[in-house]
Amino acid sequence: MKKFQISPVSQEKISQLQQKINDKTKPLGALGQLEYLALKIGCIQNTLSPTLSKLTIVVFAGDHGIATEGVSLYPQSVTYQMVLNFLAGGAAINVFAKQHNINLHIVDAGVNHEFESHPQLLNYKIAPGTKNFLKKPAMTKQQCEQAIGQGATLVKDIHQAGCNVISFGEMGIGNTSSASMLAHFLAHIPLEDCVGKGTGLDKSGVTHKLTILQQAIAKHPMDGNVLKTLSTFGGFEIAMMAGAYLQATELKMLILVDGFIATSALLVAVKLYPAILDYCIFSHQSQEKGHRLVLKYLKAKSLLNLEMRLGEGSGAAVAFPIIQSAVHFLNEMASFESAGVSQAVD
Amino acid sequence: MKKFQISPVSQEKISQLQQKINDKTKPLGALGQLEYLALKIGCIQNTLSPTLSKLTIVVFAGDHGIATEGVSLYPQSVTYQMVLNFLAGGAAINVFAKQHNINLHIVDAGVNHEFESHPQLLNYKIAPGTKNFLKKPAMTKQQCEQAIGQGATLVKDIHQAGCNVISFGEMGIGNTSSASMLAHFLAHIPLEDCVGKGTGLDKSGVTHKLTILQQAIAKHPMDGNVLKTLSTFGGFEIAMMAGAYLQATELKMLILVDGFIATSALLVAVKLYPAILDYCIFSHQSQEKGHRLVLKYLKAKSLLNLEMRLGEGSGAAVAFPIIQSAVHFLNEMASFESAGVSQAVD
Repeated sequence: MKKFQISPVSQEKISQLQQKINDKTKPLGALGQLEYLALKIGCIQNTLSPTLSKLTIVVFAGDHGIATEGVSLYPQSVTYQMVLNFLAGGAAINVFAKQHNINLHIVDAGVNHEFESHPQLLNYKIAPGTKNFLKKPAMTKQQCEQAIGQGATLVKDIHQAGCNVISFGEMGIGNTSSASMLAHFLAHIPLEDCVGKGTGLDKSGVTHKLTILQQAIAKHPMDGNVLKTLSTFGGFEIAMMAGAYLQATELKMLILVDGFIATSALLVAVKLYPAILDYCIFSHQSQEKGHRLVLKYLKAKSLLNLEMRLGEGSGAAVAFPIIQSAVHFLNEMASFESAGVSQAVD
Repeated sequence: MKKFQISPVSQEKISQLQQKINDKTKPLGALGQLEYLALKIGCIQNTLSPTLSKLTIVVFAGDHGIATEGVSLYPQSVTYQMVLNFLAGGAAINVFAKQHNINLHIVDAGVNHEFESHPQLLNYKIAPGTKNFLKKPAMTKQQCEQAIGQGATLVKDIHQAGCNVISFGEMGIGNTSSASMLAHFLAHIPLEDCVGKGTGLDKSGVTHKLTILQQAIAKHPMDGNVLKTLSTFGGFEIAMMAGAYLQATELKMLILVDGFIATSALLVAVKLYPAILDYCIFSHQSQEKGHRLVLKYLKAKSLLNLEMRLGEGSGAAVAFPIIQSAVHFLNEMASFESAGVSQAVD
């Protein structure tokens, strides 16, 4: 696999940043998590005056062989139909991206459909869907490495265009099944605790999904190898997203993490390069059952908990203005001294 | 006291709104609280296509006689100094208002300072600060009614200018003491559970504050009368805010509720006209101790919990884009039918 140059975030400016935050005209700590965000972003960019430039959300779409086992409420065709919906501007992520002036790219990582070319659609198709991992590995080792490499290439291009803050979303009928397997093997969460309703399965649907995944576990003995786990359970959009996280970290970009599937891809990247967490802000906690536990495993606290479970990068988009607020207060608020406001009485 | 014409929100369009939400290209319920917001705002405006027009935040400032008892970490002069900071654009609320294109008005409800005139400063001063309620009632019945009436007048003017969504913030050294008393008497919360750190008291500071407030309770026997409770414990900014809530509700505006003090003023209004809650969205849960309990008493769930405790309307401002997201998805997302996306498999 491609090697990445990933180093922990510099702490060089941390005390100066904390002082700048404390000098603002507000009680000490009164902006809560906004202060934590300002500190983190200042450290990532190694400056007392960070900026957020050209936030870009990349939505990776891929199909899953496991979908034929009835693990989702929706037919596989919804994956490509939703890609067309993204391109037409009708999905939730389009609405939120427009609201916040976010650049949006849609990537065909492996959808079971031939798309006509479209300026917003990037063709990185590995294959028209993964294999059914109940029967054989979802992808080959080569396909997995190819996906990671392509995710990295794509982020390089976006960074080159002046972007320093990025987020990754996904679309793929059946992909909570892959994400649950990654959460189980990489974050050591009992399978039944990370198998949830996905797009809205009822109780018997969740039970069926769990049974299928248990059978798949029995079929594929794992040995702790991260890439083997990823290639066995898929999907292409998750592997490509893992590569994208790694490249974004190498480029010292600020990363907004979306929901359950986006976090499962991050888990892959973190297992390979733990320092990646220094660059991540967790935008929201998904209502999909396993997400809370994966966040806990990563010792991550999410900004929002709005009971969303949509994917597409929608949670990251909705949370983005909060991150902007953190940067704005750090750059724009007056200090006690400049505003002539008295300090606390000792 | 002025009478208000307040009626519960119409439920006429609720099923059509729910259908419109369910038809959007997303799994049922997948936008979580955004769906709840869209439904609520549609009902308030009695339309399937709600709009948010000219969000205005009014920051009411007032001084408190009780501040002389050492219940705050900051000297009383910080109230007027922060008003000057608001007018100069250097406070947190200025930064967030600018970020989200929010109209900001500052109201002198009773600050212990003579301000020069300023286009953004509305002079509704009742008196230069309340009386020290450890010794006598914070204000007279007449002053209390005057404040409520002026809060109402002010909101009428803002509504006239085309605003349909409004929020109220506050500034006043010592005002968590007033808010704690209102929470105690109107929401029946044990005093020690609603006396917190305010701007940042340490443990002994909180103990001192609690002792002072216990002495004040012993001094003023209460009989459940809402206006008597308000006039006894103040402050002017809280009374004016209560009138503002009532007028906004009469005008069927959408109301974003800020933190602990803003919610204590709402409590006054709710006790007088319970239907007001139909018009309210709770923007955030403050880190100030009593807020969680007051929200619980009101059966309210806040959108954000970012451990903020600043006041000024800052929580409402930071939460506003989430409310915009709710309205945008309702108005702009494609339906399954219009986008040609397959529905769930039965």
